[in-house]
Amino acid sequence: MDRRAFLTTGTSAWAALTASANHTFADSASVVHKTWNQATGRSILQLNHNSNPLGLPPTARAAILETLAEVPHYPRARRGQLRARLAALHGLSDEQVILGAGSTELIRCAVQAYASPGSRILQADPTYENAIEYGEPFPYHLEKVALTSDSAHDIDRMSAMAARWQEPTLVYICNPHNPTGTLTPSAAVEEWIASAQDNVFFIIDEAYFPFVNDPSYWSADKWVQTHSNVLVLRTFSKLYGMAGLRIGYGLCAASTAQRLEQFANHSRPNMLGLAAALAALEDATWTAKSLRIWAQCREVVTTCLDELELKYFPSHTAFLFHEIRGDHSAYQRRMQEQDILVGRAFPPLASFNRLSLSATPEELERFTDALRMFRQKGWV
Amino acid sequence: MDRRAFLTTGTSAWAALTASANHTFADSASVVHKTWNQATGRSILQLNHNSNPLGLPPTARAAILETLAEVPHYPRARRGQLRARLAALHGLSDEQVILGAGSTELIRCAVQAYASPGSRILQADPTYENAIEYGEPFPYHLEKVALTSDSAHDIDRMSAMAARWQEPTLVYICNPHNPTGTLTPSAAVEEWIASAQDNVFFIIDEAYFPFVNDPSYWSADKWVQTHSNVLVLRTFSKLYGMAGLRIGYGLCAASTAQRLEQFANHSRPNMLGLAAALAALEDATWTAKSLRIWAQCREVVTTCLDELELKYFPSHTAFLFHEIRGDHSAYQRRMQEQDILVGRAFPPLASFNRLSLSATPEELERFTDALRMFRQKGWV
Repeated sequence: MDRRAFLTTGTSAWAALTASANHTFADSASVVHKTWNQATGRSILQLNHNSNPLGLPPTARAAILETLAEVPHYPRARRGQLRARLAALHGLSDEQVILGAGSTELIRCAVQAYASPGSRILQADPTYENAIEYGEPFPYHLEKVALTSDSAHDIDRMSAMAARWQEPTLVYICNPHNPTGTLTPSAAVEEWIASAQDNVFFIIDEAYFPFVNDPSYWSADKWVQTHSNVLVLRTFSKLYGMAGLRIGYGLCAASTAQRLEQFANHSRPNMLGLAAALAALEDATWTAKSLRIWAQCREVVTTCLDELELKYFPSHTAFLFHEIRGDHSAYQRRMQEQDILVGRAFPPLASFNRLSLSATPEELERFTDALRMFRQKGWV
Repeated sequence: MDRRAFLTTGTSAWAALTASANHTFADSASVVHKTWNQATGRSILQLNHNSNPLGLPPTARAAILETLAEVPHYPRARRGQLRARLAALHGLSDEQVILGAGSTELIRCAVQAYASPGSRILQADPTYENAIEYGEPFPYHLEKVALTSDSAHDIDRMSAMAARWQEPTLVYICNPHNPTGTLTPSAAVEEWIASAQDNVFFIIDEAYFPFVNDPSYWSADKWVQTHSNVLVLRTFSKLYGMAGLRIGYGLCAASTAQRLEQFANHSRPNMLGLAAALAALEDATWTAKSLRIWAQCREVVTTCLDELELKYFPSHTAFLFHEIRGDHSAYQRRMQEQDILVGRAFPPLASFNRLSLSATPEELERFTDALRMFRQKGWV
């Protein structure tokens, strides 16, 4: 029975869940902006960035409106409030929390602070490229290590490489991983942190932390209490629907935060983002709803991928990395002809595409319809 | 006749202007957030940051509300719109405009891009300290040159020093000047730019450009067409009342913008700030009104300073740098006891205070009342 039949009969638990979700979408559809293709009359499905299909939490929206009157002032007071709240959330002191205009700013700060002749960036291949990009103007040696067969970071190999080097080594670990959406067991990451030499600095990017529900995974945040060479990153861009507001944060030793601060923008982040982030943290209902919607999104897409026998990585994130079989740029172009924007290529896995689950399950059916049509044409 | 009498009689042009302004304040008072001292029941006058007492332009406020639905997305599309608009405003190409989370981000980028063993920062003493602060982790030599007797940059002396050096030299010129509010003749700046060696890179900070109405002053923006060693900075934090939104921009050669971009945050600035800035540029009525109010603010304060025979620098900005005669920290503390926050010290001019005109003329009378009381107590 295909999913359409499910929806038509409306007799299963899945259909009930979807129906309830549909009600939710009707409520929230108006709060997320759409762009339209005037020629085709279709909205453009933006499945190329991992944003929340439900938009901003209502608490965050209200906080922005309440904070408009403060916008002529600099954001300092608001910054202190968010730092204190995040410190309490992680059981750390305020001085162990550093705010950024997105967690990307803190990747930049670490890359710049660590740059010296002979220093290395060590990361998985493929992975999120921020660290490499920020390293471009500096004399970094770039070292890439292929993922394991489980699509985890190859911690054994990476740690063995770092142990052979005396030079400063910046290790970037994205967990859950981008672009595959997979997990690297936290125990393995911890073992490396515990045994690493002082020349290794760890950036543990936990942008998708709230999406994970797996016993092998937990945050690395406790390590910042004892290890000044660990920076744990979180963001409000994904779960909290605030990519446009540019708010992220880092957890690290107070001395590390002071060092990173020297490379950060003064008077950051912006005040409306700060207020929205603070308010979003209190909106547990909305958070749970968002995660439920994303689970439905995954279901819609994986059902289609299974049907078409296209491989995909088990996702613990807001995206799905799946096989496309043909040429990546042709796939991207053909999807664009359907007014669907899909992710860019992540070489060396060029026969896969990263599909952002940044539309409602209903809207994603336009994508699955397109994919089935591509199969009929022999394109995937 | 003191100003109170003026207001009571209401017979002069000044009083009429003030009355009209009062109407304006009543309209706009609600849009700027105030903090209150619960113990004294007074609002806290924040005269320590140069923000617009009228708050956000109404067009910007409307743009923020209209853009909330886009906040789940990254700000890329909006960024292109603002760059194009600013390029048109300055008669430059889009590639000659670089956006920052405040102009402070672009000062950071330039300082970081220019850092090398032996490189220098050359600036006035005192001046806005951003460049020095961002230079702290780098091996910059700092060179300070006292202002002239006209409180202008001593271009003759600064250019002569730079001409003797072979090392890379980052020149920071704040014009109008912060903290004095004074002008450096644009012709002198231009002469230096035209004749400088390649080892000199100019940051011309024009944060207060819109406040100036003086024939000796004009923007340095045309120089970016021919000189890749010139970066002109503007901000939306002052005139446009958006300090909390963190939007500034730089004008420079396309090649320079590309170089600075390597040091800038990715995916910046935030989307609500971008939308607000774009809309604010179209609000000429509000801009004119703001500048008129600031002129009144200057009048209120300088009338009092004249009466008390306290010196001040002629201001072409949103602040007044004036004599306080006594110890700076005692002055700051005593003003705080009146629920008035005044500026920090700017050594070596420690017997002066930078007073932000970030309150309405009416509200500033609380400041002038306090200053007169300080005189009675022999404190100023």
